Amino acid sequence: MTRKIRMGMVGGGHGAFIGNVHRMAARIDGAIELVCGAFSSDPERSLSSGLALGLSESRCYADFNQMLTAESRLPAGERMDFVSIVTPNHLHFDVAKAALESGFHVLSDKPATFSLNEALALAPVIAESGKLYGLTHTYTGYPMIKQAQALVASGELGKVVKVIAEYHQGWLASSEDDSGKQASWRVDPNQAGISCCMGDIGVHAANLMEYVTGLQITELCSDLAAVVSGRRLDDDGTVLTKFNNGARGTLMASQVAVGEENNLTLRVYGEDASLSWQQQEPNSLWLKRNNQPSQLYRTGVGPMADTTLAATRTPAGHPEGYLEAFANIYSDFAGQIIAHENNQESTRNVPGIDDAIRGMAFIENAVAASHSSIKWHPFVVDRSPFDN
Amino acid sequence: MTRKIRMGMVGGGHGAFIGNVHRMAARIDGAIELVCGAFSSDPERSLSSGLALGLSESRCYADFNQMLTAESRLPAGERMDFVSIVTPNHLHFDVAKAALESGFHVLSDKPATFSLNEALALAPVIAESGKLYGLTHTYTGYPMIKQAQALVASGELGKVVKVIAEYHQGWLASSEDDSGKQASWRVDPNQAGISCCMGDIGVHAANLMEYVTGLQITELCSDLAAVVSGRRLDDDGTVLTKFNNGARGTLMASQVAVGEENNLTLRVYGEDASLSWQQQEPNSLWLKRNNQPSQLYRTGVGPMADTTLAATRTPAGHPEGYLEAFANIYSDFAGQIIAHENNQESTRNVPGIDDAIRGMAFIENAVAASHSSIKWHPFVVDRSPFDN
Amino acid sequence: MTRKIRMGMVGGGHGAFIGNVHRMAARIDGAIELVCGAFSSDPERSLSSGLALGLSESRCYADFNQMLTAESRLPAGERMDFVSIVTPNHLHFDVAKAALESGFHVLSDKPATFSLNEALALAPVIAESGKLYGLTHTYTGYPMIKQAQALVASGELGKVVKVIAEYHQGWLASSEDDSGKQASWRVDPNQAGISCCMGDIGVHAANLMEYVTGLQITELCSDLAAVVSGRRLDDDGTVLTKFNNGARGTLMASQVAVGEENNLTLRVYGEDASLSWQQQEPNSLWLKRNNQPSQLYRTGVGPMADTTLAATRTPAGHPEGYLEAFANIYSDFAGQIIAHENNQESTRNVPGIDDAIRGMAFIENAVAASHSSIKWHPFVVDRSPFDN
Amino acid sequence: MTRKIRMGMVGGGHGAFIGNVHRMAARIDGAIELVCGAFSSDPERSLSSGLALGLSESRCYADFNQMLTAESRLPAGERMDFVSIVTPNHLHFDVAKAALESGFHVLSDKPATFSLNEALALAPVIAESGKLYGLTHTYTGYPMIKQAQALVASGELGKVVKVIAEYHQGWLASSEDDSGKQASWRVDPNQAGISCCMGDIGVHAANLMEYVTGLQITELCSDLAAVVSGRRLDDDGTVLTKFNNGARGTLMASQVAVGEENNLTLRVYGEDASLSWQQQEPNSLWLKRNNQPSQLYRTGVGPMADTTLAATRTPAGHPEGYLEAFANIYSDFAGQIIAHENNQESTRNVPGIDDAIRGMAFIENAVAASHSSIKWHPFVVDRSPFDN
Repeated sequence: MTRKIRMGMVGGGHGAFIGNVHRMAARIDGAIELVCGAFSSDPERSLSSGLALGLSESRCYADFNQMLTAESRLPAGERMDFVSIVTPNHLHFDVAKAALESGFHVLSDKPATFSLNEALALAPVIAESGKLYGLTHTYTGYPMIKQAQALVASGELGKVVKVIAEYHQGWLASSEDDSGKQASWRVDPNQAGISCCMGDIGVHAANLMEYVTGLQITELCSDLAAVVSGRRLDDDGTVLTKFNNGARGTLMASQVAVGEENNLTLRVYGEDASLSWQQQEPNSLWLKRNNQPSQLYRTGVGPMADTTLAATRTPAGHPEGYLEAFANIYSDFAGQIIAHENNQESTRNVPGIDDAIRGMAFIENAVAASHSSIKWHPFVVDRSPFDN
Repeated sequence: MTRKIRMGMVGGGHGAFIGNVHRMAARIDGAIELVCGAFSSDPERSLSSGLALGLSESRCYADFNQMLTAESRLPAGERMDFVSIVTPNHLHFDVAKAALESGFHVLSDKPATFSLNEALALAPVIAESGKLYGLTHTYTGYPMIKQAQALVASGELGKVVKVIAEYHQGWLASSEDDSGKQASWRVDPNQAGISCCMGDIGVHAANLMEYVTGLQITELCSDLAAVVSGRRLDDDGTVLTKFNNGARGTLMASQVAVGEENNLTLRVYGEDASLSWQQQEPNSLWLKRNNQPSQLYRTGVGPMADTTLAATRTPAGHPEGYLEAFANIYSDFAGQIIAHENNQESTRNVPGIDDAIRGMAFIENAVAASHSSIKWHPFVVDRSPFDN
Repeated sequence: MTRKIRMGMVGGGHGAFIGNVHRMAARIDGAIELVCGAFSSDPERSLSSGLALGLSESRCYADFNQMLTAESRLPAGERMDFVSIVTPNHLHFDVAKAALESGFHVLSDKPATFSLNEALALAPVIAESGKLYGLTHTYTGYPMIKQAQALVASGELGKVVKVIAEYHQGWLASSEDDSGKQASWRVDPNQAGISCCMGDIGVHAANLMEYVTGLQITELCSDLAAVVSGRRLDDDGTVLTKFNNGARGTLMASQVAVGEENNLTLRVYGEDASLSWQQQEPNSLWLKRNNQPSQLYRTGVGPMADTTLAATRTPAGHPEGYLEAFANIYSDFAGQIIAHENNQESTRNVPGIDDAIRGMAFIENAVAASHSSIKWHPFVVDRSPFDN
Repeated sequence: MTRKIRMGMVGGGHGAFIGNVHRMAARIDGAIELVCGAFSSDPERSLSSGLALGLSESRCYADFNQMLTAESRLPAGERMDFVSIVTPNHLHFDVAKAALESGFHVLSDKPATFSLNEALALAPVIAESGKLYGLTHTYTGYPMIKQAQALVASGELGKVVKVIAEYHQGWLASSEDDSGKQASWRVDPNQAGISCCMGDIGVHAANLMEYVTGLQITELCSDLAAVVSGRRLDDDGTVLTKFNNGARGTLMASQVAVGEENNLTLRVYGEDASLSWQQQEPNSLWLKRNNQPSQLYRTGVGPMADTTLAATRTPAGHPEGYLEAFANIYSDFAGQIIAHENNQESTRNVPGIDDAIRGMAFIENAVAASHSSIKWHPFVVDRSPFDN
């Protein structure tokens, strides 16, 4: 086997939900090894978190700058290969930029940055660094999302005319929910950015729309709301979209849809056939046509696209879940690093800076359009819609 | 038993889908008897249709005016009690007005009229006639819709904050679909009115939103489209709404969502709990709260609201379908007629002229708002939004 | 149209569940008219029940013998055509025999008779009468059951190797449930016969197994139980079967499966493909093959067998329920009567005396085999397995 | 953190399905490290497999005896802690015995051994070794199975009266399927033992029945079959059971149920409430009562039993799958090892030798009873039912 890829982590100390998810995902395939981390802005907490993860004290760093400096000095066969960024949003840019400039690949939690302008500023940094940049749009890692993408690309649906994406959660349905560790930074404009709901989950739905269809949003109409009184950021919203082939879309996201867990769904209607998928039952993908029995694709059952097969670990009927989807992102990124090292083209497909920019653009355009009394707005990607 | 209520029908001759549905619905409970009809604008077709339905030749009329005149002359114990209107939309008003003015109750297929102005004009006719007017918003007849309405009214959900209604069909996905008997008049502005998709199905979704929540739409933002090229009316659309309690709504309707059958769904999110219902599995109603097991209400299982029980015919596990929902509208209307005859208040709840006006207003406001570049528009009910 | 078929009813007075279900089913298509009845063994109750149903006093009879005599004397164009029998089981035979001998067709609720010997005795009565005899095995009336039957017959599944039928209810889970009107006669050997669970619902499951596959049970192994202490008849049981093509089957039925409504399911596995169907979602039928997407057939969607189409009333997505399935039995029986009158072969397929005998044989063989310490028993149909 | 537990593996070389599943499961929580292996009976294959897994050549062993000897000589802080056995069934006993006798804990794939007598013989070996023995009954690792077990134990269902377990697969539906790597040893009596279907999957269903209910099978009636002609072992079967509290059960397993993936389901009916669960949608658990809305428990939603929470990694709505269930077995076993090292009682619950014996007894009793013409047989656990 090729060597294990070495990961350093920024953020994700004790009690952080997403940091542990990243680590579990990185472990599943045995291709990645956690070698160091700056797990918290509190040096003691960073140390204790790293020790608990089995790291040696010398590689538990007080902050990310220290980590980058120290790791750079280690022998090539020892130092980390990439930095996994799992901090709150407002730190993503600084960490990513510094890591890239220090010669490390970066795999970042989403949204990519605090603002679109940051994402735009990150692109040349990546280009100049010659390093890899990936974004953990987890849901793109599901086998049936790969299959959906392949079915659209193959022309099975005909021209896409309508796309519906939903991401409904209920966990912030009450103002009392704001005090939890997961919630507090998400509802704080200083840490989360200009959006809570669209920035945290709406952006996943927008990403899936484009990822699966291969289309791009060109215009949008947006209605965001802070349903729970006192909130400064949106906790709910609907965004109508137009795509570059003329198709229309509806994107609904909410964190106040009480009783909903993590109800991300995608429906794509073409002229000939339609697809539908639900994240909570992720191993099923419906293909429907008029006047024919509907077809249910299931992970592991029968012939599938190569990308689907590459994302599948277990035989039919052994459900693959969220961590496996996440692990596909990590393993694909590890594969990209190997290919990069060998100066090869990688066949692995990980969302990157283009998706990062489009994601941040989605968030900012959705917020900007929501404030307007005009219905439709162009989807601006080369500057913040707030720059005028 | 009280006597059978006598029904005359206008429209619904050979080959008409909805006419036969109305007749089956009217029969199920044995409370209504078809006694006459003007089933077609073609007198011979009307006659043969009526004979095939077991009517005597003398009560198969050449047109509705003839029917109203002739029936009026029959003895009170023989003549029809009410007229069921199942013609294309553009004839609804004239038939309803004439029937009411001739002293007959009217139960009309939806949408109520060709235009909002017609619906507004119908209201005083009804009032002056002293007769009953009902509208077959079929889906309100389902037991679990009654239960949903009762749960909202009881405060089980807390304040409603978000409502999502969808009505997706795929049967008009191609221009080749336009030539069928069911399709041809729906896509024709001269017979259907100013909307195809919103007029035919969107109006059901809007009605359910208001029926179940008890709220009223006060503003809307609309994006309708003729997805299939060459169509003169909308075949797809999304309408964002605001309700009179501040709640927001999203209504999606489509006739080009290929592979969809008759996928009407309703989700109501309150501050405390949420409901969801799908017409294609109509005997199930979900009640969800955060941090608790979800609850599944099922037709016939356990204690229910009185209105739910009154709408239920069979014990748990014997699925009730579309015809039974339709039959509930008919039986409730028959019950209203009996009560009216006896000068009693009826406890039966059938959508009436107010729903008719709101439905027509929904259609016209959605179309008008769709043409505007402004996002939000007040929901005008006392005049057509096209009157300026 | 051909004339309406005239129905007389025995049983089904005030408060009877199944009598009203039969009447609703008979009404839906408008082909049948209730003209008389002996609705109760109590003459006053019979009269008041009939009046409430809109019958004239003269045709509300004190008992079924009076009804048969009186109706026989009416003019041919007025007297009933057939008798619908909806009494408890122990009366089925006497009523059916008398009606046939009086020259009336008979449509009987199931199980056909109190005992297999009665069913065997009924066969020559039917033959000699030259009249029609039908049995309301309701579930055979569902469109997707017709489709399942057609798919098996067409060879789509290959040779059938395994059949699983379940019928689970929970309504008799406690001894306190025995006192209700629906329960009391079913748990009483004097009214229900030798079985409660197998006689009431297991027989439906057995019937569906044979109806859909076209196979016949040839051997069985049975384990019945009275789970609730104090019961004299079975309230739960499992029956293993072998079929005449070598296939195996498992039939499970229970009235003490707490929380279950009316959970009748059928799965048929062939060498090439398999089918599954659930009564509580009756408009869906799965066809599955190895290594291919599963296919979901839906009532009203796309090409179907002729028998399926004939059993379908509404377009795709308008769910058809239990009453519609029941109505198909009634309408098919009415069609048979018309054909019989015109000396034509009927294309309508209604379960008849052969199914009646096999159903009673199933009940008696299952009970007899359950008492044995031997595993497998031949399925005896030409005499009661209790006759030795 | 406590140190990582070191794992050696026997079996699971290139191309083996289950070996890789075990390794992924062992990695997820980062508590276990693969340090050595004898991955194949072919030394070269073992070496190349180990190298591909990142092991050093010195710890890729030619056979398990070599591994046990060599590892025993390593320093305590370096040598493996336990052996994971993932060979075909016929080798389980020898490897387990040797490993235990060499002072290593053992975690074995199921079924535990080739025969019941081997399992019985293993028990004293374990006892004498003072080492831990675990069995990967994977499905017991699902959070909702833990919750089901807790609900039964809490008395929520009342006395259990009926248990239904199914495990349906279709992958061996044709004789052509026998040649694949996964199939060939399973259908071979010399490698699989006396049963294919019951030994491979029926035993999981039997284990779940007992694991969730806390009951024990005391009698059984069995009908196994080799549906595909030419097979020497069963590929399908139904087993009726009686439990030690008087409850009855039905267990169905098949490898020829064409179109089925890995359809393991469990239903438990008590006097007060019932549970149902399906492995293919593992994060849902239904609790049903008569005359009340059904309740749906979902992984991660709301208060749960401690054992459920300990088995849950991600928040509500992020589906956990098969590998996570498997990982729970591994992590629990690692926890047991830590506790054992510290002379503490472990709170972790991993199926052990008692389950191993009961599982092997189930297989042998089911096969023996299937050959008998007598219906019911006692469930013998202290000797093989074939020993007479």
